[in-house]
Amino acid sequence: MTELKPLFNFDQLPAKTTNSNGLTGMDVISVDQFDPDKLAYIFARAREMREMVRRVGGTDLLKGYVLACLFYEPSTRTSSSFIAAMERLGGSIIPITQGVKFSSVSKGETLADTVRTLEQYADAVVLRHPEIGSAKLAADYASVPVLNAGDGPGEHPTQALLDLFTIREELGQIEGLKIAMIGDLKNGRTVQSLTKLLLHFDVSLRFVSPEILRLPLKTMNQVIDAGIDARETHDVADVIDNADVLYVTRVQKERFADLAQYEQVKDYYEITADLMAKAKEKMIVMHPLPRVGEIHYNVDADPRAAYFRQVQNGMFIRMALLAAVLGQA
Amino acid sequence: MTELKPLFNFDQLPAKTTNSNGLTGMDVISVDQFDPDKLAYIFARAREMREMVRRVGGTDLLKGYVLACLFYEPSTRTSSSFIAAMERLGGSIIPITQGVKFSSVSKGETLADTVRTLEQYADAVVLRHPEIGSAKLAADYASVPVLNAGDGPGEHPTQALLDLFTIREELGQIEGLKIAMIGDLKNGRTVQSLTKLLLHFDVSLRFVSPEILRLPLKTMNQVIDAGIDARETHDVADVIDNADVLYVTRVQKERFADLAQYEQVKDYYEITADLMAKAKEKMIVMHPLPRVGEIHYNVDADPRAAYFRQVQNGMFIRMALLAAVLGQA
Amino acid sequence: MTELKPLFNFDQLPAKTTNSNGLTGMDVISVDQFDPDKLAYIFARAREMREMVRRVGGTDLLKGYVLACLFYEPSTRTSSSFIAAMERLGGSIIPITQGVKFSSVSKGETLADTVRTLEQYADAVVLRHPEIGSAKLAADYASVPVLNAGDGPGEHPTQALLDLFTIREELGQIEGLKIAMIGDLKNGRTVQSLTKLLLHFDVSLRFVSPEILRLPLKTMNQVIDAGIDARETHDVADVIDNADVLYVTRVQKERFADLAQYEQVKDYYEITADLMAKAKEKMIVMHPLPRVGEIHYNVDADPRAAYFRQVQNGMFIRMALLAAVLGQA
Repeated sequence: MTELKPLFNFDQLPAKTTNSNGLTGMDVISVDQFDPDKLAYIFARAREMREMVRRVGGTDLLKGYVLACLFYEPSTRTSSSFIAAMERLGGSIIPITQGVKFSSVSKGETLADTVRTLEQYADAVVLRHPEIGSAKLAADYASVPVLNAGDGPGEHPTQALLDLFTIREELGQIEGLKIAMIGDLKNGRTVQSLTKLLLHFDVSLRFVSPEILRLPLKTMNQVIDAGIDARETHDVADVIDNADVLYVTRVQKERFADLAQYEQVKDYYEITADLMAKAKEKMIVMHPLPRVGEIHYNVDADPRAAYFRQVQNGMFIRMALLAAVLGQA
Repeated sequence: MTELKPLFNFDQLPAKTTNSNGLTGMDVISVDQFDPDKLAYIFARAREMREMVRRVGGTDLLKGYVLACLFYEPSTRTSSSFIAAMERLGGSIIPITQGVKFSSVSKGETLADTVRTLEQYADAVVLRHPEIGSAKLAADYASVPVLNAGDGPGEHPTQALLDLFTIREELGQIEGLKIAMIGDLKNGRTVQSLTKLLLHFDVSLRFVSPEILRLPLKTMNQVIDAGIDARETHDVADVIDNADVLYVTRVQKERFADLAQYEQVKDYYEITADLMAKAKEKMIVMHPLPRVGEIHYNVDADPRAAYFRQVQNGMFIRMALLAAVLGQA
Repeated sequence: MTELKPLFNFDQLPAKTTNSNGLTGMDVISVDQFDPDKLAYIFARAREMREMVRRVGGTDLLKGYVLACLFYEPSTRTSSSFIAAMERLGGSIIPITQGVKFSSVSKGETLADTVRTLEQYADAVVLRHPEIGSAKLAADYASVPVLNAGDGPGEHPTQALLDLFTIREELGQIEGLKIAMIGDLKNGRTVQSLTKLLLHFDVSLRFVSPEILRLPLKTMNQVIDAGIDARETHDVADVIDNADVLYVTRVQKERFADLAQYEQVKDYYEITADLMAKAKEKMIVMHPLPRVGEIHYNVDADPRAAYFRQVQNGMFIRMALLAAVLGQA
């Protein structure tokens, strides 16, 4: 073999450096990891991301970084948000997002081995998995940061962060707000995660649901223990005139054994233009999406309808998190 | 929280600007949107794209831009073409291209909400959907440009543009050409869309098909109303010696109730090396692909076989369109 | 149409140049293509890639290049490795990796036409296909480089290259090593391909398998003809104290007609911490992964467990190959 001309001149390539932000290398598994200081940090970075995207679209901050997006169940919204976030930061993605037939998995490979394989290629892993605890397990085995994009009935921390960020950005502050959660409070992990984050602030909470879909005892007790002003009700009418935030979730028909019962109660939980006429002038309607009827299309043009802006905030929050855990923000 | 060192220095980042090309922000839904001026503009830009790709492979023209590729049914050829187009322009993609089980969709989300979600992450959306009118509906709801990559039996405008561009580039002009469309003229939307575009030019059209697959009445009447020299026939032999363009499409066996009937007629529509011996020296054979036998492999080496060059023209046309609607060309 | 302001100033864009490395434009179909000179070249480049990734993560070496990843059957490990390789070199990918329902294929398109289509968009094609000979066929039709990522029971040359590279990097040399292959030697194409590459070197080979899964006659005869010191055995205990390399593969339960027979023999082929206590201090355990029990988790923390480092070497080897066949290394 003749002598090789070197491909790279490393003297001209500055080595990677990482910030000392306290988040570098961190796994993002649960909202419990975020205290008010960390929240303020991530939100400040997310604001910079928003400004950057609006002005120039993208940056080279994460150039040379690769993110593996490992989705054992498909989630177009969440995977697209992480993909766009990484790409707007100049990074690259390994898209494993269709949630179907992973060959290694079908050959019996464990999640631990799959994650330890992907970290050989990628600098971080986003994981969506149907089983509770899967993100924690993956993080225990991986040496690169693992970001939980939903572990079944467990947590979906980036959703809660983007929800809280939306409230903050839309209304200018969190302290003092009256926040109503509406719909299926029993099965919706977004409500429970957001509620946990809100316990860091001096807010009033109202929980609006059918009897069979009330907030779980455990979460309700956490709220009470935190000394938060909280109350439960069955009717949106009880909160509409006073709420600063209506956080609406799907009331899934299939949760009702008796469909007639659903038809009977649904009017108490559907947000319409008529209902919005009774709401404050400065307030917002949020929804983690997808919706299937609980917010009518005739609400969309209302400037208080914040749910699509909320979607975009998800991208900014994920940009901030990715840059932070990779030591670049 | 300690003070943050800003991530970005916006003074050094020039803000996005957009050209005043008359196409910025435009949705690409139908060939009806393209008059000869717009066609000439797109073709000129596509030529520049071709030159750029041949010389340097890629550019940074769309750096910082993200394209969502939303394919409700898989189409490897079309999705790959758009993906390569965006990437060669320096942009990024959100690949939702496998056409299977979208979680949001399976939860009952509407196309309108899916598109309004994706536009929070992306600067444009390419949509393939099995239902006619879906691209128009998506465009009505989206504030970013929507590009129709096929809406079922409806339109597939970028295919028609690349077809016309191929004729122009291969033969130097469109005016005066004798163009024969061959095969299934009834169900093939490509034939109908290309025909519409050709009505802007002084061409002669020949439609060659089995009786049961003749051009729809509506399209034939448009041709006649435009005063174009046009005629229908059952046999390629009637056009082979004279045609400048043979535009071949699949004659799908399954359209024939009686397979024996198909076997009987297929020889009239299959392009072979023997048949090509009777064609002019300067002419081209085109096909939207995939083919399943209507052009024999022994034609591939013939320099007049333009169908793979036609495929590449699709990438150049889509590069031109993307750059134009995003205000960068 | 008014005159167009040109999009690109080609005077300022240096045209693509390619190295004269002897590999430019080469298809990578079989290990038979790699003699010791080519191996040394690729390994030297792979080392540069490793250094580059560790220091800066990525480079612009393949900026403007596009790689089509065409996987007719899903293989998360291999496709992710090629994707990360291309991205860390600054190139882009067309991801067709889910191995499901290709529309063109379902319409009856041949592999030859699919590849000739993709080469219109991409500068190289990586192909995974269930049929032996498919990569060769694709390469015969394509004018761009085709890289075989596994053609069914045929070859998987990049796996063999990364295996050999791992041995070289972990142990400092290949000459003189005692290498034991363990498990299913009959059906595992990785063992047969790696064995072929090892015939270029002065090594000792031991083949450890159940009787029904012995190395095929043809491969064994090649070993004997090469004058290599080789022997077969049924028990890992025969090689454990002496081996420099244990190359372990899956012994698939389903290969045994009688499960009781499997349970009876499996202890002879499973690698455990207890077994490793008998191995040399300087040696390595390798596995092409995924594993399903033949290497116990209690071996993972052993510094001699090289299988995850082996995974990462795959990315470096593929980076070297991509850069080489595209004329940039």
